[in-house]
Order: sequence, then C-alpha cells, then structure tokens
Amino acid sequence: MENDNFNTFLTSNIDIDEQAISLLPSSCKTLTLKKGDFALREGETCKHTFFIESGLLKQYTLDNKGKEHILLFAPENWFVANIESVHFNRPSNYFIEAVEDTRILLVDEELILRLSQYSRAFLQFNNKLLHSHILSLQTRVTQLLAASAEERYLDFIQSYPQLVMRVPQWMIAAYLGVTPESLSRVRGELAERNNRSRKA
Amino acid sequence: MENDNFNTFLTSNIDIDEQAISLLPSSCKTLTLKKGDFALREGETCKHTFFIESGLLKQYTLDNKGKEHILLFAPENWFVANIESVHFNRPSNYFIEAVEDTRILLVDEELILRLSQYSRAFLQFNNKLLHSHILSLQTRVTQLLAASAEERYLDFIQSYPQLVMRVPQWMIAAYLGVTPESLSRVRGELAERNNRSRKA
Repeated sequence: MENDNFNTFLTSNIDIDEQAISLLPSSCKTLTLKKGDFALREGETCKHTFFIESGLLKQYTLDNKGKEHILLFAPENWFVANIESVHFNRPSNYFIEAVEDTRILLVDEELILRLSQYSRAFLQFNNKLLHSHILSLQTRVTQLLAASAEERYLDFIQSYPQLVMRVPQWMIAAYLGVTPESLSRVRGELAERNNRSRKA
Repeated sequence: MENDNFNTFLTSNIDIDEQAISLLPSSCKTLTLKKGDFALREGETCKHTFFIESGLLKQYTLDNKGKEHILLFAPENWFVANIESVHFNRPSNYFIEAVEDTRILLVDEELILRLSQYSRAFLQFNNKLLHSHILSLQTRVTQLLAASAEERYLDFIQSYPQLVMRVPQWMIAAYLGVTPESLSRVRGELAERNNRSRKA
C-alpha cells in the first residue's frame, strides 16, 4: 500500500515475473519530508537512490555568492540519486530538498544489481533509464551552450508541463540558467505574441 | 593485434575470465577515419557504440547560425555513442567527427547486455561507466550554470591535460561555452598572474 506508485511504475514498465519485482519494493525504506526539508545536504553521503512516491524534489548547488543553481527537478515517479555517494563513495556536491511535501523510497543499489542479473528485462529497463538520463543531460548541456532564454523556456514548458504550475518562477530561472528578469521578459513577450495572434 | 587498447582497457578494469572478455573485441568491426571525416552526421542513425582505439573525436551540434557547440571530446580509450540511435531508435542530433586521424571499434549493444548477464563484474563495470558519464554531464551542467569562464577553463586543463595541446583554442571555447575572445583574455590573465608569481 505504501509503495503504490513504485509497484505500478515497475510492473507497467517491465515484463518480468511479479515475484522478482516484489523483491525490490518490499525491502525499501520510506522517508517523509515536509516542504523545505532536505533529503541530502552538500557534503553528506547517502548510499541509496531515491524514488519519488509523491511530491517534488530539487537537486541544486550554491555558488560562492550563495546563489542557487538547479540541476534537476524530480516529481513523482522519478528517480534521483547522489551519484558521487552511491557509486563513487564521495560526499555529495549537491543539496536535495523538498519543494513540496514529499514521500520517497530508498532504493538499494545492491538490489538493482541483483535484479539486473536475475532478469534480462530488468537489466534492459535499468539500462534504458540510465541512457535516458544521459540523453536528457546531454540535451541540457547543448541547450545551455546554444539556446536562447526563450528557447530554453519553451522547451521546459513542453518537456515538463506539469512543473510549470508547481514551481515558482525564480526556481525555473535557476534551472534554465537565466536571470529571473530575463525569464519575466520572455514570458511577457510570449504572452503578448499569444494575445496578438488571438486577436488576428 | 588490431584491438590492443580495447583488450587492455577491459582486462585491466574488469575481473572476469579472459574467455568472456574475448567475446567482445573479437566481434567488433573497426573504422578508420582521417582528420575531418565523420563517424556520424546529424540525422543519421547508428546502432553501435564507438570505442576509440587511437586518435580523437568530437561530438557537437550546429546552431541555426551554423555555430559549432561541442558536447564532448573523446580521445583514445573513451567510449562515445549516439544515444538517440543506439537506445531510442531516433536519428542523431549530433555530428561525431575526427579531430585527428582516428581508429574506432564498433561495439554492439547486444554484446554488452549479454556480458552484463554473464558476469556480475562486467555488469558493475558497465554500470560504473554509465554513472561516471552521468556524473561528468552533471558537473558540466552545473559549471555552465554557475562557473565563470576562468573557472571552466581551469577545470578543463585539470580534467583533460592531454587535450589542451591537441585541440585548437576555438574548439576549447566551443566546449566551454565561452567566446574565443573571452578564452584568449582568460589565458592572458592566467599567464600574467603566473609570470608575476614567478618573479615574486
């Protein structure tokens, strides 16, 4: 009952026997966070991957002026991990904080390895998740190198329509790598263009 | 003989039996590129991951003004793949081009899956490669969001000292997301500071 989303997420994505899949959620601990609570702070170590059952997390750094730069938003049914900790035994360079009240499952890497060897379907699924993570980061790098503030914002609302209403504007700006003033100008120009095309 | 680096790379990194490892290189095709040749163009599809036996590749996009933005440099002993093609059956968004005369092996994803199931050591090694790729992309995103031109350049020469002498300045600028003029200014300032501290 506790892990409803995780079970649905797995069984609807992977064609392996129920028994194998049930290994995973049954051994996961749950963590409940209030808005503003930290799942992990910079400098801490955590050996688990987080699966978001409900709510929303952000993963970010602070620069030397204390300004926040957001690497990732993770809403329900997403995974987020501090890869330095989980895979390289190093403390985290990032904060992971609840943007809304959030419930997460702590997934053990050892279980993921065991399931990958047990089931080829799980192995392929996990590989696909990792590669789609790489792909989205590649797109992000290319966008930060090459795209205008408007292009970045349009891509964001197309890729994450459900986040636009849940996340304050300054956080979207901190994710897109633009100033809040630029984002506000871009939104103004888009609204004006929409209005004009409606009147035409 | 042909796959010397690949064999050494695998046997020195993975503790599995030689027989299993020999499966992989023996079935890989080789591709020889002259400087300026393409391993893959935007819009093309390729189902193989490339292992660089010798030489240097770059993976990049062109923006709508024809300006080049470099996602990745891949020198010898690196992997580079067009993930859209290999894992999602979509044409490539990137060009992959030889910066020097280059010899690459074409590694088949099916073999990687088979070896991952055959050997837990290989599975863990491959997982580690994927996660270190994710980690380096995360660092890249954070740097593009938060770091100055000087910080980006200093990190580049620390992370890839062997590339600084092999890659022209304009390509480093196109990788760091700074103008060639900014990079030139940063290099000048660093040289001046070094000179001053040597005289002091």
